[in-house]
Amino acid sequence: MIQVAVIGGAGYTGLELVRLLAGHPQAALAAVTSRANAGELVADVFPSLRGSVDLAFSSPDDAALQNCDVAFFATPNGTAMNYVPGLLEAGVRVVDLAADFRLKDPELWSQWYGVPHACPELLDDAVYGLPEVARDEISQARLVANPGCYPTAVQLGLIPLLEAGVISTDGLIADAKSGVSGAGRKEAVATLLCEASENMKAYSVAGHRHLPEIRQGLQRCASSPVDLTFVPHLTPMIRGIHATLYARLLQPESTDVQELFQARYQDEPFVDVMPAGSHPETRSVRGTNGCRVSWHRPQGGDTLVVLSVIDNLVKGAAGQAIQNMNLMFGFAETAGLEQLAAIP
Amino acid sequence: MIQVAVIGGAGYTGLELVRLLAGHPQAALAAVTSRANAGELVADVFPSLRGSVDLAFSSPDDAALQNCDVAFFATPNGTAMNYVPGLLEAGVRVVDLAADFRLKDPELWSQWYGVPHACPELLDDAVYGLPEVARDEISQARLVANPGCYPTAVQLGLIPLLEAGVISTDGLIADAKSGVSGAGRKEAVATLLCEASENMKAYSVAGHRHLPEIRQGLQRCASSPVDLTFVPHLTPMIRGIHATLYARLLQPESTDVQELFQARYQDEPFVDVMPAGSHPETRSVRGTNGCRVSWHRPQGGDTLVVLSVIDNLVKGAAGQAIQNMNLMFGFAETAGLEQLAAIP
Amino acid sequence: MIQVAVIGGAGYTGLELVRLLAGHPQAALAAVTSRANAGELVADVFPSLRGSVDLAFSSPDDAALQNCDVAFFATPNGTAMNYVPGLLEAGVRVVDLAADFRLKDPELWSQWYGVPHACPELLDDAVYGLPEVARDEISQARLVANPGCYPTAVQLGLIPLLEAGVISTDGLIADAKSGVSGAGRKEAVATLLCEASENMKAYSVAGHRHLPEIRQGLQRCASSPVDLTFVPHLTPMIRGIHATLYARLLQPESTDVQELFQARYQDEPFVDVMPAGSHPETRSVRGTNGCRVSWHRPQGGDTLVVLSVIDNLVKGAAGQAIQNMNLMFGFAETAGLEQLAAIP
Amino acid sequence: MIQVAVIGGAGYTGLELVRLLAGHPQAALAAVTSRANAGELVADVFPSLRGSVDLAFSSPDDAALQNCDVAFFATPNGTAMNYVPGLLEAGVRVVDLAADFRLKDPELWSQWYGVPHACPELLDDAVYGLPEVARDEISQARLVANPGCYPTAVQLGLIPLLEAGVISTDGLIADAKSGVSGAGRKEAVATLLCEASENMKAYSVAGHRHLPEIRQGLQRCASSPVDLTFVPHLTPMIRGIHATLYARLLQPESTDVQELFQARYQDEPFVDVMPAGSHPETRSVRGTNGCRVSWHRPQGGDTLVVLSVIDNLVKGAAGQAIQNMNLMFGFAETAGLEQLAAIP
Repeated sequence: MIQVAVIGGAGYTGLELVRLLAGHPQAALAAVTSRANAGELVADVFPSLRGSVDLAFSSPDDAALQNCDVAFFATPNGTAMNYVPGLLEAGVRVVDLAADFRLKDPELWSQWYGVPHACPELLDDAVYGLPEVARDEISQARLVANPGCYPTAVQLGLIPLLEAGVISTDGLIADAKSGVSGAGRKEAVATLLCEASENMKAYSVAGHRHLPEIRQGLQRCASSPVDLTFVPHLTPMIRGIHATLYARLLQPESTDVQELFQARYQDEPFVDVMPAGSHPETRSVRGTNGCRVSWHRPQGGDTLVVLSVIDNLVKGAAGQAIQNMNLMFGFAETAGLEQLAAIP
Repeated sequence: MIQVAVIGGAGYTGLELVRLLAGHPQAALAAVTSRANAGELVADVFPSLRGSVDLAFSSPDDAALQNCDVAFFATPNGTAMNYVPGLLEAGVRVVDLAADFRLKDPELWSQWYGVPHACPELLDDAVYGLPEVARDEISQARLVANPGCYPTAVQLGLIPLLEAGVISTDGLIADAKSGVSGAGRKEAVATLLCEASENMKAYSVAGHRHLPEIRQGLQRCASSPVDLTFVPHLTPMIRGIHATLYARLLQPESTDVQELFQARYQDEPFVDVMPAGSHPETRSVRGTNGCRVSWHRPQGGDTLVVLSVIDNLVKGAAGQAIQNMNLMFGFAETAGLEQLAAIP
Repeated sequence: MIQVAVIGGAGYTGLELVRLLAGHPQAALAAVTSRANAGELVADVFPSLRGSVDLAFSSPDDAALQNCDVAFFATPNGTAMNYVPGLLEAGVRVVDLAADFRLKDPELWSQWYGVPHACPELLDDAVYGLPEVARDEISQARLVANPGCYPTAVQLGLIPLLEAGVISTDGLIADAKSGVSGAGRKEAVATLLCEASENMKAYSVAGHRHLPEIRQGLQRCASSPVDLTFVPHLTPMIRGIHATLYARLLQPESTDVQELFQARYQDEPFVDVMPAGSHPETRSVRGTNGCRVSWHRPQGGDTLVVLSVIDNLVKGAAGQAIQNMNLMFGFAETAGLEQLAAIP
Repeated sequence: MIQVAVIGGAGYTGLELVRLLAGHPQAALAAVTSRANAGELVADVFPSLRGSVDLAFSSPDDAALQNCDVAFFATPNGTAMNYVPGLLEAGVRVVDLAADFRLKDPELWSQWYGVPHACPELLDDAVYGLPEVARDEISQARLVANPGCYPTAVQLGLIPLLEAGVISTDGLIADAKSGVSGAGRKEAVATLLCEASENMKAYSVAGHRHLPEIRQGLQRCASSPVDLTFVPHLTPMIRGIHATLYARLLQPESTDVQELFQARYQDEPFVDVMPAGSHPETRSVRGTNGCRVSWHRPQGGDTLVVLSVIDNLVKGAAGQAIQNMNLMFGFAETAGLEQLAAIP
């Protein structure tokens, strides 16, 4: 059993890490930190954990973190970068669920996140933790930058097409719809039930922080510069991302899209290519680490529509982080991640 | 006071017509029909109307319809076309909220709706009832084809751009999200709360019946053939449509999009052009006949994103029908349609 | 047209006052205050009001309030009592939607609200604004204490029975379910969509501030001391209160409950006694000032179950406040309050 | 591995059985029946099961059922009773999740369910499957009548009090709130999202079929006749039951309610007695087999309020059925039932 710390355990991704780790066969929760809740039992703050998690929240400054095998950062952007160098030095491996190590270019990072990067020298070492793209690097990594929720859904929908070079890299569109949990567990007006329920809206159309991350990820798989428009929407549900992706097929008649997706993902335990003509539902992956994708060519034209769904808190955050941990420690990739969605 | 009949009053658009007509200063509800509920008080079926609507449902075969000034058809597709010729002959004006008279081409109609059209000779007379485009024709019309919900939201977002010729007519994308009430009030599994709540999915990506209607409407405003991809989504809320529209600006640097929208809609009582950079919310028009639009040029590129929201049951159905009635009878266009959205 | 001020216009009851007053035929909005939003256009904060409300938020210290005919306080508990004496002196009539003037006993008030009352000398003058009980006093009042949402729903369900003396005043139970908007528009975790959606819970079972108010109101109508257990619940919806009330009939066989309710409320414009055996739905009064009540005697026993539904923001707050204003100024009691619920 | 059949696998409780059995360490799904879906892959009807469940739906008439070790009936009331005698004869043990074997009195059964009972001779053999009350009998049973959802929540909240004789058996009140999934997966209008969302209502106040079952269960634990009023409500969420229970303490000052609950449930793996003053939330047990209870004595009076929450599809149906199976086959009682609720 490896010893695991969750830093920032009082938010939604932290809580989801705790839920999933509580059922992991080879990982033991050693510490869950929260400045605001230090000293309180985790199960007092989250009664769903009563009887299953006995730990109290500790302070992130607690030296005990250094004795863990791996630390998950479920902290706000710009936090992990201040702690990671020390932990790595102490031999602790790190998976950061925030954005601190996702962008390779520190200038671009500080442009989107508003502060200078605290340890740009680590950016080259950090592995972008999308197992479907970087499984081998992740298994060797000391520091994994866990992908964002939107970037996971969008990349898994487009990567097979870009790798195969069958779509134009110009004019890509990602119209993405997210449940409200993506906004986190923090005092706010905009995400009150009374504001976000019975309502649909786009937000951050001018530029969302996940845009450069998605671009970087797509670019890595494409042979020419990628031009992407990304529009996120807030949807009145708790969990789930539905990405609707639009691209132009270069040679529509000679491209077997279904075969291409199936071949690309045939060995992937968490990506399910649905039959042609399917409409994946976000609830089909709710609470699970799965991604379901399908595609359409409306009216047989050259516009390709790819549909990609994940649970933003699992494959888009905590589940993918554990998948990365599994790879880093040589466990079965699916260990602790075999839940089925509870429908309805 | 004109005498008004609502044919098919036991569905959601019929109920919404009754609600709005009950408060209309110049229209009196003379008949509300429902085969299934004939004989029952409308307010027994819909207790929200207790104390305000005294009528009982009647049979659509009741001769009394012929004495009305106007009949609204809130029936399934393919129903109105069997009744309309007789009513017109009797001097009753008609607003059909279904699709029977929306498409000008009867071949196209029967291709999408699966049966031959019963009165193709009326298609030329029928006026497509989008007041922002055809106000004068509507005011002279005997038969108005009330636009569909998606077509209303999409057309109001794109028409100013197509009329001005500032976007490419190639590669238009309409990614639309609808509340569940669009599916109507009928026994079904797919729209149960337990199926549609906490879930997001696309549907009918291969081809939705509103596609030819949208194309026809856009084509009317454009100078070259319009190529549109339309993807509808089911969103876990009761009311509202959010259309996210993507187009390529032909001359991005020299086009003042805000000015163009404002000029086009400055005299429109129900279309609100929001300030540049806004994100309209569906709830801001819930229960009202309003449409709110805004636009973005992400990262200053040539991709234009237009956001357009309506209430699918009001501007997308019953409200627009009453707006059309107001025009047909020379009433103030906003009569009976001045509600504000109840927020939250 | 009277001139009306809304103090605390950036919360949900304030917004609802503004919505309803915008359509009132005899009242003009003269001022809407909000310390936090002073200077901003009301319609910029609440885009649903674009095109209908032109005012900017002002500061509550603005002297212009003193020129209004009536001021509504939609402020947190303990605020109005600091402003009311000055306004009354300036000849402004006041309706307080908070709790400051609801309890007649200042000791009891400070026990439940945690601070001494600022103007206990006004408590006798203040009229408890439940029109169904105190219509005449309200029409003469300078200062009206607008009832709380739970107290409105509970009292309207029990008053006919207590006035008639047909139920035991011992062991009354009010099991009430409220939508989340009762918690107001303020930054919080507990009422985030992700916390309150897909969830049901009781709260404040040990003692909710509405308990003494309900007791006082029931006591006024009863001939012996009233013993009440009140349990509020948070329900995953935006608006609505459903009160399920349990009482023991003293003489079950000889009591005609339906007749009793109908006789009591036959002239009430906003209380609808449904047919025996009905189950009123909260949505049937959503956005309206109505209250619907029905009753049951399960298995013909002596336990009486009364069901009472209101919209907590309308009959439970802003609508009732306007109903009170209408009475105070001699307007038709229903002026500005004739909306029908938009179903679905 | 025992071989398990699910009869009626296309409803919500059937689907939940399949989900839970798919992860059970000692039970293998051998057959899932559905007349309507016979021949289709289970995972085609429920895509959340893709990759995890390979079976096709079979016909309930398929002889293969007779080779199973245990059959779960997730069928409508009145179905199982026609199949159970044959299965028992073939040596198949049965857990019926419907009501066919819950009531001991066949007259009472046919009074509430409208048809004569098909095998009244089996009612004595059938064990009412509430493990907290009948663990030993269940472990010896051939036929288990799985309790209803409301009865489970209500009984677990009241049994400790009735067994200890500390409350009056007169005037008990169970005010229960259920998510919509209790109504099942069938075509209907009343449970459409558009009807049940943003709404709260009581139903079947005159008499719900779970009433005689609850009475029978409470009576078994009480020393005098139990007088209960049961009012169910439909709540706008998918899963969860919240029972709010009201009783009179006989000797309030000398009764240690907390100690009584803790002592009664200390060895129960699925009943969690929360600290005094707690408010259990339905979401804290969502997707799990847990029940959480707490109690209050408002204002220190003699009215006791007990709060009890379960997931209606798990502890109220499929989970409890598997708990019963575990007992019948000597497995660990918690096998396959160790999920934690996914919050949010």
